[in-house]
Order: sequence, then C-alpha cells, then structure tokens
Amino acid sequence: MVKSLGRGMFHMEQSIYIASCAAIAGKKEGEGPMGQCFDRVEMDSHFGQETWEKAESRMQQETIYTALQKASLTADDVDIILAGDLINQCTSSTYSLRPFGVPFLGLFGACSTMAEGLITASLILSSGAGKRCVAATSSHFSTAERQFRFPLSYGGQRPPTAQWTCTASGAVVLDTETEGSPAISGVCIGKITDLGVTDANNMGAAMAPAAADTLTRWFKGTCRTPNDYDAIVTGDLGMIGGKLFMELMMKQGYEINPCYHDCGAMMFDSLTQDTHAGGSGCGCGGSILCGHFLPLVKSGSIKRMLFMATGALMSPMLVQQGESIPSIAHLVEIVSGKEND
Amino acid sequence: MVKSLGRGMFHMEQSIYIASCAAIAGKKEGEGPMGQCFDRVEMDSHFGQETWEKAESRMQQETIYTALQKASLTADDVDIILAGDLINQCTSSTYSLRPFGVPFLGLFGACSTMAEGLITASLILSSGAGKRCVAATSSHFSTAERQFRFPLSYGGQRPPTAQWTCTASGAVVLDTETEGSPAISGVCIGKITDLGVTDANNMGAAMAPAAADTLTRWFKGTCRTPNDYDAIVTGDLGMIGGKLFMELMMKQGYEINPCYHDCGAMMFDSLTQDTHAGGSGCGCGGSILCGHFLPLVKSGSIKRMLFMATGALMSPMLVQQGESIPSIAHLVEIVSGKEND
Repeated sequence: MVKSLGRGMFHMEQSIYIASCAAIAGKKEGEGPMGQCFDRVEMDSHFGQETWEKAESRMQQETIYTALQKASLTADDVDIILAGDLINQCTSSTYSLRPFGVPFLGLFGACSTMAEGLITASLILSSGAGKRCVAATSSHFSTAERQFRFPLSYGGQRPPTAQWTCTASGAVVLDTETEGSPAISGVCIGKITDLGVTDANNMGAAMAPAAADTLTRWFKGTCRTPNDYDAIVTGDLGMIGGKLFMELMMKQGYEINPCYHDCGAMMFDSLTQDTHAGGSGCGCGGSILCGHFLPLVKSGSIKRMLFMATGALMSPMLVQQGESIPSIAHLVEIVSGKEND
Repeated sequence: MVKSLGRGMFHMEQSIYIASCAAIAGKKEGEGPMGQCFDRVEMDSHFGQETWEKAESRMQQETIYTALQKASLTADDVDIILAGDLINQCTSSTYSLRPFGVPFLGLFGACSTMAEGLITASLILSSGAGKRCVAATSSHFSTAERQFRFPLSYGGQRPPTAQWTCTASGAVVLDTETEGSPAISGVCIGKITDLGVTDANNMGAAMAPAAADTLTRWFKGTCRTPNDYDAIVTGDLGMIGGKLFMELMMKQGYEINPCYHDCGAMMFDSLTQDTHAGGSGCGCGGSILCGHFLPLVKSGSIKRMLFMATGALMSPMLVQQGESIPSIAHLVEIVSGKEND
C-alpha cells in the first residue's frame, strides 16, 4: 500500500526494490564521458538489424535480457513489463517485447518514460499485483532524427539549442523481495505543463517548467529540501533546459545547484562531440540512471536521490499545426538499502 | 489490495467502482444502430477545430468533462488521469488533457487502450494511491485514415476485410467510494501475440489470437466459463475477427457465442453504411462500453460482464518493413452493484 503525500504524490509503505538494472548504449555514447558506465557499448548502430527501427527494438530487448540475467532471472519470472519509447505507436517496445510472452502495459511519456514506468510499476506492485515488474525504455538517434526532424541523408543544420537523441536503453527489474537493494520510496506523477514554447529545437526550454512544477510540488508535499538529497537528476533537459530549471527552482526558493545533474548534459562532451545542448531521448535518462546512478545508490555513495525524467508530449504534426509543446516531468525517489524505512 | 489469480491476472479485494462514464461520437456513428446510446453525437466532424488532430483532442476533452459532470465532479477532484490514443505520440490525449492540470500517465495500447486504462487505474487505486482516477481514450476516422492508410482525398479502395475507424471517445471515472455502482472486480493484462498476419487491412484477424489467449487464461485462472457472464465483449475485432475469435475459443473448449458481442460489429450497419468488416479504433470499444454496456450493468440488466479491448501494436513503417502485426488483448471484469463482493 502507499500513503498519499498530495495529489499524485505517494510514499511507498512497503519498499519497492530495484533488484537489478542494465544499460546498453551506442558507439557515440560509448565515446562520451559516461562511456564506462554502460553494461555494453555496441559499435554497430544497426545492432545487426536491417532497419533503424528494428535496431532500436533489438537494443531494448537485449537491455531487458541483460537486466534479467544480472538478477539470475528469465522473462518467465516477470509478472508485468511496462515499456514505451519515442517512435510512432511505440513499436520499439512492442516489437522488442514480442518474444517475451510477459503481460505487457504500453506507456507513452516521451522522454519521461523511464520515470513513468518506474512509478506505474511501483504503484502496481504496491497493490499486491505480482511480485516482479520490469520497466524499460529506449531511444535511437537514427529512428528519432528521421521521425522528428529530417532524414539523416538530408544533412539538416542543427541550431545551438538542439539536443542529440541518444542511442541508448535502460531497463530496471523491480520487486517486493530483494531487501537491502536500492528501493523506490516515493513517486510524484507529473502534470502536463505548457508555457507556450513552439520551437521543437529547444525541448529543454519547453520541459524545464514541467520539471520545476513537479519538484516544487514534491518539496512542498514532503517538507523536504535539496539538502535532503545527494543527487537530484533530470533526464534530458540538456545544458540550456537544465540552467533554466535551476533558475526556476531558485525563484521557488530552492537552490538545487550543488546536487543537480542532468543526464543529457552528462552524456556527451559537447565541445568535441558536436552535440550542442546535450543528449536527449528516453534512453538518455534511462541508460544513465541504470548505468551510473543506480550503481552509486547500490554502493551507498548516494543515500537518497530524486530521478526526474521529463517528456515533450508533442508530435511533428501538431508543431506544424502551430501548437506549442506540452511537457511533463515524473519524479521517483530512490534510497539506498541502508536508508530504507 | 489485489489477489493474484495467475500471471498478470488479479482479483480486486476492494471493489473499484465506476462512478460515472461518458461517450461522445461522430455523425456516422450517430447514424448507426448504436446512435441512441451516446451522451452526444456531434454533427461537425471538426468539433469546431481547424484540424482533424485538434478535433480528436477536443472530442476526448469534452468526453472527460461530460463524465466528470455526470458525477458532479470537476478535474480538481481527480487524482490521476490515464489516457492514450492511436495518433503518433498520443497527441490526441496529451493536447486534450493540457488544460486539466491533473497528474497524467500516458498509455499506448492502440485499440486496447480503454481496457489498459481501466486495468492500470484499478491497480493504482488498489494500492491506495488516490481516491479517484479517470481512464479515457478516443479515435477519429480522419486522423487515423491519413496516418495509417491514405490521405482522405486520395480515395483509396478499401478491401472487404478493412474496418472503419470510429470517430468516438469514451471516459470512465473510477473511485473507491461510490458503493452500489458497477465495479471492476478483476483484470487480466494481455501478452503480446503475433501469429504472423502482415495485412494491415485485416486487423481483426491479427488481433483475434490475442483475445483468445487472454480469455482462455482468464477462464483457466478463475475456473469460470462463458455461462458465468451475461456478456463477453470485445472492442473492435469486427465481423471477421470476431468470427475467428469465436472459433479459436471453441477450439479451447469454450462456446462463447450466446453471450458474445463485438463493439466494432455493433457500431455500424455494414450493409447500408459501407463500413465493410465493422468499426475499429480506441474510441469504438471505449464509446460502446461507456454508452451502452456500462448503463446496462448499472441498471442490473447485465450482472457480470467481461470487456476485452484488443490492440494491433504496429505502425505503418514496421509493416512497410515487412514485419507482422503484434497484438494484445486486455480484459476487465465488471459486475453490477448487487454482484459486488
């Protein structure tokens, strides 16, 4: 069962444990500053497949297999898989999961999917429904570029505010039994926020207000402050959105700068990798959470952290129709084994 | 809390009540045999908007408002909204919900979304997370045709197996308090099933095996038979898929024919409305559940029913790449107030 902390905000009365997790990334991500943290860096951006879409599916599938293997599990041990991605009709997830034969709930939260999956899985497990869930997501530079921007061969110019969709995937195995593991202790479901940004090449600016809304609600609902956390991590606001987010939080009276990290800003060396405002995509936050932060929580280096993944809930068609970009930010509180209560 | 009945199958120990529901449909749907059951039939297929996509968003938004009004509620009374649709990046839902300011979880289950939303909301409420959720979905003939098949002005020929995407929306308000209302007493989460159908104009055939898998699992897990139900309802298998589904169930030893209905087959008069194998789309099952079946459960005419919405989890791009169509069927057991236990 869970306890309400406010609207859409809940404290887990029984800990939901992170039994294992895995991250797989592409070549460019492997060459960046985070390259060492992934379970695997795949040099073939096609992942042995004929098309980019099938490549992304394969990457997500292998990430889930890896996470299960690390916990000595197979798909048969999983009650429910929750997954989603950026690609039309979430096919990266549906084709990825086709061979698993596991009850499946499809999610759409754009780049917020990793957090949305962790929240939904945690609440479902808190109801007593099953013992073990997997939450997974992925993104691929080549599937996303041609769907959201231009065909790769067009060679479109990217403005300085643009981010680079990461080729990466993250998967988390959640259960109610592996005591001592990192645990999800609270969640906050985001509200759709839209301050009128219409520039699809400046997603960070569109998403920053959603992140600020969610984090402010969390601090108020829990009476916590940035000082209570070793790390406050956003998914892919990037350099520009991350700066805006810190400013918005400062206006609310919260100085998060000392413990703030953004996975999009961490993923690449923007000076040498030509990635402008940083990484983006569902797989960006998903892979750095699973490859970098969760191991730090497991080792106890991080005792208590917030993972907030933000999503821009738009499509190219609605932007072409002159619409602004609605965004969302979902928040998950993760504590180390010693901090569980 | 819930009790497990098998993998991905759960019985609600505390009833999750259907406090209210609403259905809005378009002109053609209003002219069909079910025309009288909707809360509103809108003669303007643009719903007062400039584009089809904005029309679908507006329809879904007004359906949610209607459902809330029928329960004398406003959006402020809702803890979480769960919604999804067929359109790329689920924008019909995200733009629909933008003004509500309610914590939002986006779903992608294609035409299974109404059932996926009811399942996810029921499990979340069973965890104690909040008191009231809304599950909603929609589809629109004109948004779906141009996205999945051809531009409307192309005038493409439709084969006899093709179905007609309904312009319709359904929304359900779920809570833990309105005793005596129809209630969700059990759920079964679907598994992705793919028997190799590659014809995007024969979705019913692609989805029938998923429905048979879910219903067979449910009967085995609960030790129930078709005789225990006044109605077993699928979302949009249509005439061809529905017939296949009955045959597949017969092979499993279950004769469902006497109580079986398919919302896609019910929606139109195929002889006079030129709709071939019947209606389809998330809004098809959603609107007929909310407009026709739930009122029958409320009045006690139906004491116990199963609502199964099926979804084809493909995209035009993956079909163009030669892939077959993975499908899913999610099941919800609904009982009348007098049957609650």
